[in-house]
Amino acid sequence: MKKALAFLAAALFAVAATADEGMWMPQQIPQLAPELQKMGIKFDPNKLADLTGDPLGAVISLGGCSASFVSPDGLVVTNHHCGFGALQYNSTPQRDLITNGFLAKTREEELPAGPGQRVFVTTKMEDVTNRVIGNLSPKLSDAEREKAIQRNGKLLVEECEKPGGVRCRVASFFEGAQWLRTTQMEIRDVRLVYAPPFGIGDFGGETDNWMWPRHTGDWSFLRAYVGKDGKPADYSKDNVPYHPQHILKVATSGVKPGDMVIVAGYPGRTFRYRTAAEVKSMKEFTYPTIIRYATDLNTILREQGKSNKTVEIANASRIKGNDNVLKNYQGTLSGFQKFGIIAQRQKREADLAAYIAAHPDAKKYAGVLDTMNALQQRIASTRQRDMVLTWMERSSPMFTQAMTIYRLSIERPKKDLDRRAGYQERDWPRLAEGTVRAQKSIEPASDRAGLRYFLVEASKLPADQRIMPLDAAVQKAGGVEPFLDQLYANTKIAELSQRKAMQSETTAQLAARHDAMLDLAAAITPLDLQIENRDEEIAGAMSRVRPLYFEALRTSSGRLLYPDANGTLRMTFGTVKGYAPRDGVYYTPLTTLNGILQKNTYSGEFDAPKNEIQAIESNKTAGYADPQLGTVAVNFLSTVDTTGGNSGSPTLNANGELCGLLFDGTYESLGNDFIVDPEITRSIQVDSMYMLWVMDAVDGAHNLLQEMGITPKF
Amino acid sequence: MKKALAFLAAALFAVAATADEGMWMPQQIPQLAPELQKMGIKFDPNKLADLTGDPLGAVISLGGCSASFVSPDGLVVTNHHCGFGALQYNSTPQRDLITNGFLAKTREEELPAGPGQRVFVTTKMEDVTNRVIGNLSPKLSDAEREKAIQRNGKLLVEECEKPGGVRCRVASFFEGAQWLRTTQMEIRDVRLVYAPPFGIGDFGGETDNWMWPRHTGDWSFLRAYVGKDGKPADYSKDNVPYHPQHILKVATSGVKPGDMVIVAGYPGRTFRYRTAAEVKSMKEFTYPTIIRYATDLNTILREQGKSNKTVEIANASRIKGNDNVLKNYQGTLSGFQKFGIIAQRQKREADLAAYIAAHPDAKKYAGVLDTMNALQQRIASTRQRDMVLTWMERSSPMFTQAMTIYRLSIERPKKDLDRRAGYQERDWPRLAEGTVRAQKSIEPASDRAGLRYFLVEASKLPADQRIMPLDAAVQKAGGVEPFLDQLYANTKIAELSQRKAMQSETTAQLAARHDAMLDLAAAITPLDLQIENRDEEIAGAMSRVRPLYFEALRTSSGRLLYPDANGTLRMTFGTVKGYAPRDGVYYTPLTTLNGILQKNTYSGEFDAPKNEIQAIESNKTAGYADPQLGTVAVNFLSTVDTTGGNSGSPTLNANGELCGLLFDGTYESLGNDFIVDPEITRSIQVDSMYMLWVMDAVDGAHNLLQEMGITPKF
Repeated sequence: MKKALAFLAAALFAVAATADEGMWMPQQIPQLAPELQKMGIKFDPNKLADLTGDPLGAVISLGGCSASFVSPDGLVVTNHHCGFGALQYNSTPQRDLITNGFLAKTREEELPAGPGQRVFVTTKMEDVTNRVIGNLSPKLSDAEREKAIQRNGKLLVEECEKPGGVRCRVASFFEGAQWLRTTQMEIRDVRLVYAPPFGIGDFGGETDNWMWPRHTGDWSFLRAYVGKDGKPADYSKDNVPYHPQHILKVATSGVKPGDMVIVAGYPGRTFRYRTAAEVKSMKEFTYPTIIRYATDLNTILREQGKSNKTVEIANASRIKGNDNVLKNYQGTLSGFQKFGIIAQRQKREADLAAYIAAHPDAKKYAGVLDTMNALQQRIASTRQRDMVLTWMERSSPMFTQAMTIYRLSIERPKKDLDRRAGYQERDWPRLAEGTVRAQKSIEPASDRAGLRYFLVEASKLPADQRIMPLDAAVQKAGGVEPFLDQLYANTKIAELSQRKAMQSETTAQLAARHDAMLDLAAAITPLDLQIENRDEEIAGAMSRVRPLYFEALRTSSGRLLYPDANGTLRMTFGTVKGYAPRDGVYYTPLTTLNGILQKNTYSGEFDAPKNEIQAIESNKTAGYADPQLGTVAVNFLSTVDTTGGNSGSPTLNANGELCGLLFDGTYESLGNDFIVDPEITRSIQVDSMYMLWVMDAVDGAHNLLQEMGITPKF
Repeated sequence: MKKALAFLAAALFAVAATADEGMWMPQQIPQLAPELQKMGIKFDPNKLADLTGDPLGAVISLGGCSASFVSPDGLVVTNHHCGFGALQYNSTPQRDLITNGFLAKTREEELPAGPGQRVFVTTKMEDVTNRVIGNLSPKLSDAEREKAIQRNGKLLVEECEKPGGVRCRVASFFEGAQWLRTTQMEIRDVRLVYAPPFGIGDFGGETDNWMWPRHTGDWSFLRAYVGKDGKPADYSKDNVPYHPQHILKVATSGVKPGDMVIVAGYPGRTFRYRTAAEVKSMKEFTYPTIIRYATDLNTILREQGKSNKTVEIANASRIKGNDNVLKNYQGTLSGFQKFGIIAQRQKREADLAAYIAAHPDAKKYAGVLDTMNALQQRIASTRQRDMVLTWMERSSPMFTQAMTIYRLSIERPKKDLDRRAGYQERDWPRLAEGTVRAQKSIEPASDRAGLRYFLVEASKLPADQRIMPLDAAVQKAGGVEPFLDQLYANTKIAELSQRKAMQSETTAQLAARHDAMLDLAAAITPLDLQIENRDEEIAGAMSRVRPLYFEALRTSSGRLLYPDANGTLRMTFGTVKGYAPRDGVYYTPLTTLNGILQKNTYSGEFDAPKNEIQAIESNKTAGYADPQLGTVAVNFLSTVDTTGGNSGSPTLNANGELCGLLFDGTYESLGNDFIVDPEITRSIQVDSMYMLWVMDAVDGAHNLLQEMGITPKF
């Protein structure tokens, strides 16, 4: 433990080299201050270290997306694709909010955003390293060590959430060297306020996804409501708007190439400190296999929906999800090649070895990488089997439901602290919501066709990676087809009412149902548990060495390092800048309304609303047009370092005003979860001037402009 | 006649406004001189007015392509795609010069470029306006007038070619206001000297055709040979290299963005002075119909070749030709939209009408446009039928041969001056060559499948545009299929020996053969003649008004105008400059070796030779690399105004040195046969530094470098 703290002190006082790359914690900001001043920040950079101050106090999480408060009455701005669930929830065939967009002209017209929609306001980040890993006996086995870490974390969460109204989390930073507990106020009454028409909010669709030049109006507005006592409450007509302590001022002049920008948000996951061996396995196995599986599964799902509209709708969101994964993974896979990621990791490790050899006080790091590599090998030894198991669930929402219900029946009888994370009492409402939500995607014929593919994949697994309970079940049935015949003929898992009942049944009750899908879950679960135990062993062992590895990297680099993304609040700094995606081509950093005219086809993915086109053609842009460009900027590129989870993040200019919303990275950047190339890596923002212009000249959202302190011009 | 001369004087002394757009005649250069000096020309621009001086004396035509002399021993540089016929002619399955390229290390190794290959050196351009249109009685009917113009032209050609060794042509300039006779020395012994491998010369293939960024090494070298007496002669071992009076010096330093460039060559055809009505008909009918026909014909031809390699090869060059047309026409069609070409023409005509109304001395132009529009309407009234007739021939090489043979039998008995142009004695050798060449593309099953499509198209023609002799023939046979059965069962036109015999037979002898394809030609020819007569009438009428229309445009614009391209020697001036093809994207004006690495796949259209890749990867570029770029420039963009026929044109820098070879335009420029947009219109050149680098570092063409006065570095 002492070791950990000593290390942190070193990290915090190391020399900051550059802020160009990095997802920085608020605590690290003071060290970056000189660099930020050099970049042109126009307010005291140390303000960015204050989690609950201005501006960070206005930066919030929606769980999976980022967002920010932009009015004293709890108005929230985020991406269109982050507010999409609320649009979907409120749409009916008669009132198609997705296509037409939505604008509440009064508070009364605002619509509940749906039961799952939350606003999380981070109120506290505490160092709990001591309480997580400070009391671990060195005598613990690897598995015991991991169990103890998990238990300590659960205890810390329990303690934190006891007063109610908050959601807590204990997360690992710097490869397990530091543990922080975050407390978030959890606002449960969230309402839909405004979203532009689909032809603006999703302009470009799948074709433009990850692409530059981009012209997407990817914003929507929600509002946070609380009880009259100011505390989080379930939806009620009597709730009142939440009054955040801090809000962001929306900039009323646009960014220019070279301008400094700051992005604050909740990036999900990166792999900047993974070893060469770990990355190699991802490159050679994980990414290609997932690409193959997602491709084949989508072919199957598309085929199923070909002549049946109901089936097509049921499968649509899964197909869309797989497509997004595919484009991302294919881009990342070519990024592995383009950026030479593995070679760079190998070089980093060779440099580290040389450093250790040359520095006697670095001797403690010797052997650390070898230990990690051995652990990685152990994971890799069953990677084919583990991937098939994962995708069996991915291919079959019915099997997923059966597995979850069966597992819940195993965990429920335990004491809450002993339950597996995700199955604790605090998780039950979400599990129930998930059961309801799954119904939309359950389509037995598609389910069977998808599962069939992975049964065939399972049948091809090498001898030392067989899924034995599955082999036995298939063999007993007389082959894959008869097995599937029996499986789908003898299950009620597709029925929501049945599943609701199952969710509170005991393992014995579930067994007594003789439901084929539940029986399959029961047969597979012991293997799952065995894998979990193995993974705990590995995680426990890793927790002894990975923090040391990070420390070695930091010490040898002599630089301030940021921790990998883990879904907590981070900041990244950059400049508005274009890039050369390939020889002979330069992408300029700002797109304009002209590009909308060029791309628009009045149909499909490029279907801008007629009134927007008219506003562009009639040059109704006074007050919003960029003087240099002669028209309104739509999206812009910057060098900030972001990943999934950053969607909806406010982008601030040097004055700390909201000048854009982060919503995507460029295709050429993919690979940036592993490596950042300052020449190529770019994030995509929607320009706040475009947002304001549409709100004023196209959608007539004058009430919201006024609420944000902006005088409408049209 | 006096009118014409007066007009010319006016044209020549008008104020030169800008040289950015225009395919200028040598005679116009003195007027452009101040502008060229402003652009940065570093030699006396008036030298460009001298057809037989330096540098124009070195600029030659290959008939369809342009080229230039680059050594005192008649070494010619042109595009790879212009020298392609010579590679094809000399390739065998055992010796695949197309794929591997070719380099003659000695004169003895040089190969005959093929019977059709010519080098044309323009030696004289004379104003013959007087002799073409100066003696026409105003009493002539429209048709008589056109016949007289054609006869005058043929007389002038006959007179010019009498001494032998030259090819003469009378061409119309400024919409028929001026007529010039060009005399070209016709060198008939042309040999293949050097071409890079296909993976350099055609790098990018059809995918990159018309595209930027581009990385094509589109050059090849030929050599002109003459008899020992210095006069053109047929191929003979005893011939000696031709010694041109002027050669171009190849630049040994590259161009930079902003540099002035000059392109001299033989552009084929443009439509800059066509009326709005003419252009509208092209946009609404000609282009979409040809796109449809070429698409459908290629689908048919590809289907035919699917399972038969011999058929595939026979159809390959026709398919490639149609593909090139397709990409060009589709680009042009979108250019009509993008550049608003019709609206611009309408504006030009409205401005002209306003000018005429406001200027009493412009009264003579009143009504001119109305007359032209009425004539255009007459052409448009049968455009569907005429298009089908044209494509019947295009679809069927066998029918084309039958039509040509039959027509020759009609023309042969006439006096030479009365024969239709193309069927005069001077044309007979070329017709004979064409018969032989056609054999490669004759494949009866594909021929029938293509012709069938257009018979069906013919059957759908409106009542007032029927091809009556065809209707009668099909009806007599009992429908399209039985008609085709009989047509292909009863013809010997597919046999080369038979066609050779037919070429000297009389109309009666051909009839006596009872060959079904010849009989079809005999049935269709009267309609063809009738259309020719109609077209002569219209041309005669047009020749009274079109020169006046041009004069009106020139007078009202007050600017120096260039004549539309007509296959004669022209110059165009511009600068090295990139462009923005669409919002958010800028194309930089130079590509580099890096792009070859990025695009290369070692297969298909991107199959750069291994030794080139090695040379790039090992950075073997000293002496050729651009200091700014840090590597060798491959292709570059410039604002010069070019079109088909300019391929192979030397591109000169401000010192008059050859700094590149023109080989393409960009896709976004398409539409430039009608309009030039200085923001978008760009031509593509291969950089001479890339050519020299490949010759030195990759292909080892050190003998040729030395011949051009350049010391090899590797």
